[in-house]
Amino acid sequence: PDWTPVTRDGILQLERVFKFRNFKQALAFTNRVGAIAEEVGHHPALLTEWGRVTVTWWSHEAKGLHKNDFIMAARTDQQLEAE
Amino acid sequence: PDWTPVTRDGILQLERVFKFRNFKQALAFTNRVGAIAEEVGHHPALLTEWGRVTVTWWSHEAKGLHKNDFIMAARTDQQLEAE
Repeated sequence: PDWTPVTRDGILQLERVFKFRNFKQALAFTNRVGAIAEEVGHHPALLTEWGRVTVTWWSHEAKGLHKNDFIMAARTDQQLEAE
Repeated sequence: PDWTPVTRDGILQLERVFKFRNFKQALAFTNRVGAIAEEVGHHPALLTEWGRVTVTWWSHEAKGLHKNDFIMAARTDQQLEAE
């Protein structure tokens, strides 16, 4: 389960599902990814559910994927290691 | 834009989109709703994006809506007033 390209409303996006033991840990991860998003001013969609977070990156301006999205996907993975 | 019944994967759910001025405020709301979810042990899906949070309540056991979901939807609205 790695990053997967998905097309939504005609826009190419990069998506990955991260699994956790409960809701609390999932929400903590959402906050860590939210923090790096705020840091660079580039924001993903973060779907927080019990035991999992679905992170989706894309560039609104580019209406698709941009180099930044791949960089942020890699940084998102790093937040998992920080667990 | 109030709570709307939606059917996803054959499961009836209660959904509402909350608008905010930026990502930070959206994430703060996600955390407030997450806190009440943890409090009662009933968890929604929280989609956090720039300027908005989509909250979806349903009962996994009931595979649909239960009295608790309506109670939690009302409590979710209260978190907005606490803004």
